[in-house]
Amino acid sequence: MFRHQKELQFEVKVERPDALLARQIQELLGGQFGEMSVMMQYLFQGFNCRGEEKYKDMLMDIGTEEIGHVEMLCNLISQLLDGVSPAEQIEAAKDPMTAAILGGTNPQHLIVSGLGATPKDSNGVPWNAGYIASSGNLLADFRANLNAESQGRLQVSRVYEMTTDEGVRDVLRNMIARDRYHQYQWMAAIAELEEKNGVAVPGSFPPEAEMDAQVHAYEFWDLSEGSQSAEGLWAKGSAPDGTGDFMYLKDPKPLGQVPNPKPPHFSTHNDINI
Amino acid sequence: MFRHQKELQFEVKVERPDALLARQIQELLGGQFGEMSVMMQYLFQGFNCRGEEKYKDMLMDIGTEEIGHVEMLCNLISQLLDGVSPAEQIEAAKDPMTAAILGGTNPQHLIVSGLGATPKDSNGVPWNAGYIASSGNLLADFRANLNAESQGRLQVSRVYEMTTDEGVRDVLRNMIARDRYHQYQWMAAIAELEEKNGVAVPGSFPPEAEMDAQVHAYEFWDLSEGSQSAEGLWAKGSAPDGTGDFMYLKDPKPLGQVPNPKPPHFSTHNDINI
Amino acid sequence: MFRHQKELQFEVKVERPDALLARQIQELLGGQFGEMSVMMQYLFQGFNCRGEEKYKDMLMDIGTEEIGHVEMLCNLISQLLDGVSPAEQIEAAKDPMTAAILGGTNPQHLIVSGLGATPKDSNGVPWNAGYIASSGNLLADFRANLNAESQGRLQVSRVYEMTTDEGVRDVLRNMIARDRYHQYQWMAAIAELEEKNGVAVPGSFPPEAEMDAQVHAYEFWDLSEGSQSAEGLWAKGSAPDGTGDFMYLKDPKPLGQVPNPKPPHFSTHNDINI
Amino acid sequence: MFRHQKELQFEVKVERPDALLARQIQELLGGQFGEMSVMMQYLFQGFNCRGEEKYKDMLMDIGTEEIGHVEMLCNLISQLLDGVSPAEQIEAAKDPMTAAILGGTNPQHLIVSGLGATPKDSNGVPWNAGYIASSGNLLADFRANLNAESQGRLQVSRVYEMTTDEGVRDVLRNMIARDRYHQYQWMAAIAELEEKNGVAVPGSFPPEAEMDAQVHAYEFWDLSEGSQSAEGLWAKGSAPDGTGDFMYLKDPKPLGQVPNPKPPHFSTHNDINI
Amino acid sequence: MFRHQKELQFEVKVERPDALLARQIQELLGGQFGEMSVMMQYLFQGFNCRGEEKYKDMLMDIGTEEIGHVEMLCNLISQLLDGVSPAEQIEAAKDPMTAAILGGTNPQHLIVSGLGATPKDSNGVPWNAGYIASSGNLLADFRANLNAESQGRLQVSRVYEMTTDEGVRDVLRNMIARDRYHQYQWMAAIAELEEKNGVAVPGSFPPEAEMDAQVHAYEFWDLSEGSQSAEGLWAKGSAPDGTGDFMYLKDPKPLGQVPNPKPPHFSTHNDINI
Amino acid sequence: MFRHQKELQFEVKVERPDALLARQIQELLGGQFGEMSVMMQYLFQGFNCRGEEKYKDMLMDIGTEEIGHVEMLCNLISQLLDGVSPAEQIEAAKDPMTAAILGGTNPQHLIVSGLGATPKDSNGVPWNAGYIASSGNLLADFRANLNAESQGRLQVSRVYEMTTDEGVRDVLRNMIARDRYHQYQWMAAIAELEEKNGVAVPGSFPPEAEMDAQVHAYEFWDLSEGSQSAEGLWAKGSAPDGTGDFMYLKDPKPLGQVPNPKPPHFSTHNDINI
Repeated sequence: MFRHQKELQFEVKVERPDALLARQIQELLGGQFGEMSVMMQYLFQGFNCRGEEKYKDMLMDIGTEEIGHVEMLCNLISQLLDGVSPAEQIEAAKDPMTAAILGGTNPQHLIVSGLGATPKDSNGVPWNAGYIASSGNLLADFRANLNAESQGRLQVSRVYEMTTDEGVRDVLRNMIARDRYHQYQWMAAIAELEEKNGVAVPGSFPPEAEMDAQVHAYEFWDLSEGSQSAEGLWAKGSAPDGTGDFMYLKDPKPLGQVPNPKPPHFSTHNDINI
Repeated sequence: MFRHQKELQFEVKVERPDALLARQIQELLGGQFGEMSVMMQYLFQGFNCRGEEKYKDMLMDIGTEEIGHVEMLCNLISQLLDGVSPAEQIEAAKDPMTAAILGGTNPQHLIVSGLGATPKDSNGVPWNAGYIASSGNLLADFRANLNAESQGRLQVSRVYEMTTDEGVRDVLRNMIARDRYHQYQWMAAIAELEEKNGVAVPGSFPPEAEMDAQVHAYEFWDLSEGSQSAEGLWAKGSAPDGTGDFMYLKDPKPLGQVPNPKPPHFSTHNDINI
Repeated sequence: MFRHQKELQFEVKVERPDALLARQIQELLGGQFGEMSVMMQYLFQGFNCRGEEKYKDMLMDIGTEEIGHVEMLCNLISQLLDGVSPAEQIEAAKDPMTAAILGGTNPQHLIVSGLGATPKDSNGVPWNAGYIASSGNLLADFRANLNAESQGRLQVSRVYEMTTDEGVRDVLRNMIARDRYHQYQWMAAIAELEEKNGVAVPGSFPPEAEMDAQVHAYEFWDLSEGSQSAEGLWAKGSAPDGTGDFMYLKDPKPLGQVPNPKPPHFSTHNDINI
Repeated sequence: MFRHQKELQFEVKVERPDALLARQIQELLGGQFGEMSVMMQYLFQGFNCRGEEKYKDMLMDIGTEEIGHVEMLCNLISQLLDGVSPAEQIEAAKDPMTAAILGGTNPQHLIVSGLGATPKDSNGVPWNAGYIASSGNLLADFRANLNAESQGRLQVSRVYEMTTDEGVRDVLRNMIARDRYHQYQWMAAIAELEEKNGVAVPGSFPPEAEMDAQVHAYEFWDLSEGSQSAEGLWAKGSAPDGTGDFMYLKDPKPLGQVPNPKPPHFSTHNDINI
Repeated sequence: MFRHQKELQFEVKVERPDALLARQIQELLGGQFGEMSVMMQYLFQGFNCRGEEKYKDMLMDIGTEEIGHVEMLCNLISQLLDGVSPAEQIEAAKDPMTAAILGGTNPQHLIVSGLGATPKDSNGVPWNAGYIASSGNLLADFRANLNAESQGRLQVSRVYEMTTDEGVRDVLRNMIARDRYHQYQWMAAIAELEEKNGVAVPGSFPPEAEMDAQVHAYEFWDLSEGSQSAEGLWAKGSAPDGTGDFMYLKDPKPLGQVPNPKPPHFSTHNDINI
Repeated sequence: MFRHQKELQFEVKVERPDALLARQIQELLGGQFGEMSVMMQYLFQGFNCRGEEKYKDMLMDIGTEEIGHVEMLCNLISQLLDGVSPAEQIEAAKDPMTAAILGGTNPQHLIVSGLGATPKDSNGVPWNAGYIASSGNLLADFRANLNAESQGRLQVSRVYEMTTDEGVRDVLRNMIARDRYHQYQWMAAIAELEEKNGVAVPGSFPPEAEMDAQVHAYEFWDLSEGSQSAEGLWAKGSAPDGTGDFMYLKDPKPLGQVPNPKPPHFSTHNDINI
């Protein structure tokens, strides 16, 4: 069960309204790697966690924090939209410059949400649950989380560079700092689990079942012309768990057959050979 | 520019048709972490890569390989659907058992694709580009790739456990082996980049800009009752780059204000105070 | 079966083309609460209606009217796009001001639809059937309809405030007037059904089945700090059907257990306790 | 800011696992009118609320409660999936009956989420933010909420009739009872606002602006053959605010013109008159 | 403006309910090439038609007919769901066979729509406007229409083969017969327009503008190993408008450069060369 | 299996960066009829092709070429975005004109993809597999392909008219020329198949099964007022295969019944007659 406190986790005070920036910040709220995504990703991972109390508690701690981040960003967007009004559009119609600027804002902030944040990205595409991962395997999911915090911090940093509003920058600074810590957090959790389960997900798939396939397991197939890729650690290094050495396969040949699927039954009406 | 060879990368020969398994394998083809996702993710990262020849070449190598994996899975599904026909549904109508089994298959394999694979997941949801990441920051993206290969190998392993068809298992074994290597590959590439850029993405955000926020940067906020989460390395360890120590914040207090957004202009018709 | 008359239900004559307004009006056509939604919602409710002739006929009357509203809005958008052309973009490239204004329009009006309306919202997101409701329970659905007309009239009113084009305003005035009546219409129908079925949907769920749960049924759980919410009729009033009094639960305690789901079978590869 | 308590709001204990029921209950979690929808709808309405403290507090109370309902349903689904495993599919392959039953379950519960709930509906369609409404106008939004609770309680009642598992029924009974109260709650709030703002949303649109259109405002257009619809209160009653009487328009004539849009500029390549 | 007649265009009487078939027929209603698609496609093409009265009238005729086809299919599905009830699920729970059969049906037919048709495909994916085309160029759009009727008739034919219910087959027979005529209809309209505008869409793009590119315009690039493709008319024939002969390019070489995009400005935080 | 060559198929060199044009060109890449669609459509048709070697090889040739077109467009977009940076937004904030122009660009090009192309359309809607067709019936699918190339060439022609950048125009010229050839190619392949299978898809549906329905098969139903549509070849011509003459049905009467579906079982809680 959850409870709500009225104060925001961090202070949100913008210097001046800016409807264009409000649109851009929607990406950080309802985009693929926005706060709605990490909130739902951590909560579902926590709700679904089976038998790992320490991780479950941690997921619930941070998932709960992220609900508050969604709250903060909604407030940020509300403040950036302060004072906007449909009536401005009429003014805008008179002055081409103003019209042009308003043309770049999100029409739904006026028409649909009445100056509120929307659960959508910076182009107005609704958030959907196809963005998040909750697999039941914690190592897999913590890698999803590390990715989400990396993409997320990158996006916040870019928006930071796009404004000089110090109020907005303060909020973003806090998010950038938290996202750095959250990257560290998932790295630490990943290190713990790799220690226990091995570095390849899932750790429990029996190596002997891969046996026949292992002949080709460590080959890097050079399928794009040029061999600059031979210079990387993936091409000349060893598996991090010491199970083998990588091999650069120059000019690889296919190992399979030419496929030759059967014509289907007449009643599919594929009209083959009629 | 691309070229196609007629042979599949690995052999695909099923022992017997199985329309239910065909539906399940759609997840590995057109699901969130299926082969369409890694194919498009690596190709877009490769196409968009700016100024890092070694990585670009590597992305093109593996992206090109993945197009061939989509090809292999389409063949696998075709073979599993061999011999299915609408006429069977009429037989099924007579025998409740057969009806029941056919009821679990994907109706679109018969009605829409004429026994072909579809670019959709195991529940028939079309693949969409909201699944993939290509940010321009290679470290962020390689973490996305490591995640994709981890989730992907996990899903293939689960399907492996769901069938005894040794032909199908051979294909899956190859995928499981390749996905292990691909996890190693991204780990190696990540290690190289972390060495160069630092472990927090983006490495180039100036630490001094985070200054004020840093006071709270390393705090773990215990927002879910219980303190099992205090036992993890994220709560008592140090930043991997030695920039500070983590701190477990028991019973944290909000630092922000109670938000108080302004009522909007009359012309929004929010009907406040009328 | 349906028939079409060439005349529009109401006159549509704009004063001057305005490609920016054309984009905004897409929201009223293909947005979540646009005319496509009410058209499809009423038609599906009507088509699916079982055994209530009066309501079915009424749904078909209004659903059929709404097809004509989609037609009107397509015409409105066409007129607002009159005279736009790709060639203008070339002019625009020369004049930054014009470029800026064209930048705010919907590129698909030029590239995709050739100056026609699109079945999408003001941000270009395609209409989808996840917007509409048709449950088979008329009271539930009429509440969906009242909501749709309320949100819809609100959006039309806001667009009305965004333009001074008296031709456009005339069309919107008609829509605003019709949507007021449609709100009244659903209120009247709701009143009839509440009289027959009771005010809680579904009316047919047996009260005795809720018995044990009823102890907590009328409690308002104060889960957000502050008790301003205690001042509403939901906190101190009575059920509209006189079945009980509401109770404000200050500082409520959870009634359930701490969940403790079982670790899954090894073959899920969740990697727990390995 | 939010906090989490470990106990569930209400107890969740199923009598026996049932993977088919788990799939069905996904509708109540991630469907159009499932708990994810009301949770996000109330939270966004609360976050975006401008200047109406009593309503904002109330929205935060109930939005916060709904996060806990998502948690409860995830637990319910986890318990219903207890003991399911990929290995069962192999058993199933041997016994057509078992195969058939497993064929009706959601393959993603095994392949994707590792026996966890997914943020999707009963057919595996991901939840998306196009389901929710937050318009800034409280009366409009409370009607959306009344609709959501009506549709939601209807769906829970139907699932209740689909199982004899008394543990599951207890959970559903609680939801049915709460959803009844929540319907009353929104009715009470609606009554308050209708009192203040008038019954037509938005109340602030100036009646005189509708003037010309009002001639036709109260007409019911009989556009579907048959006149059973003349028997409803919408056809012979009066506006609830006494502003006029409804009129049944038998065989209505269109009032608009035959549209005649202009052929576009050559550079659109519409190929008209070439 | 539209009007509705109570009778269906063609008779719809099923022999016996069949919830599995109801699910399958959803594909013909709400799938990519179902009746909702042709209805919306023709209506939007008609509404958006500029200056070609004959075609516009024809589009409105057939678009209006298709609304009636959606109506017919909703009725068909309703009849196939007759007598289904949640209570059956309880019976099903006792008998594994019945459970298995019900497991293959669409849970939303019971839980969401109360035995009504849904605006979704056979896997429950909501219809969306990304399925339809309305470009403003009639020749392009009539090709879209010919495709839609071809895919549609194919799907109906397949479902026809899946049932022995003569009532259902009668409805499908009518659809199959109409879809044959509709294919002829679009062929006839296409022939008229190709005569006027030339066979390549758009006809108005000036040939001289293509000049430089024309050197390579008629080459078939053999990019997949094997040269069976050399045997088609596309490889050795001539342009249908006699503007040139096709040429089979064996082992084609790329004509472009190796791309070498510039590293971006520091403030994108792509972290290149730091 | 596939291979990649580093050179692009055709040269891509823009004269000057243009972030607005970059957004518009996204339509040609990730829109409904963009290069991602034809690439995936041809590849899936090729992968799924059963027993028609000549067509399969041809599909693989052209599908493989289209992967290279996606590559070319990604490069084109990258070049158009060269030199854009978040820092410009700060400059923009100072100069309303610049702000206005940047307001029309796609915010995700800066925030999400770091100056890379995105797999989305010009409004930022992600590409999805609901755009493509692969039915197993080659004639049906080649009509889908002819449509795709027609819509595609139309869109490219329109964008061509929107810019004077001769570098961009050269790329578009090549696409326009190739798309003309591709239209010819599908026409040639269609002609071959119509010769073999008949012109109505599917050719294999037995005419005698349509028998009863054939009475009405060739009727054009005049359901939209006005009879301009009587002037087309669809109204007075003959079936292209000489199987009958078309008939214009003025004022057609419905042939079906007034539907009267049964009230459902109590346990659906539709609340009828309670």
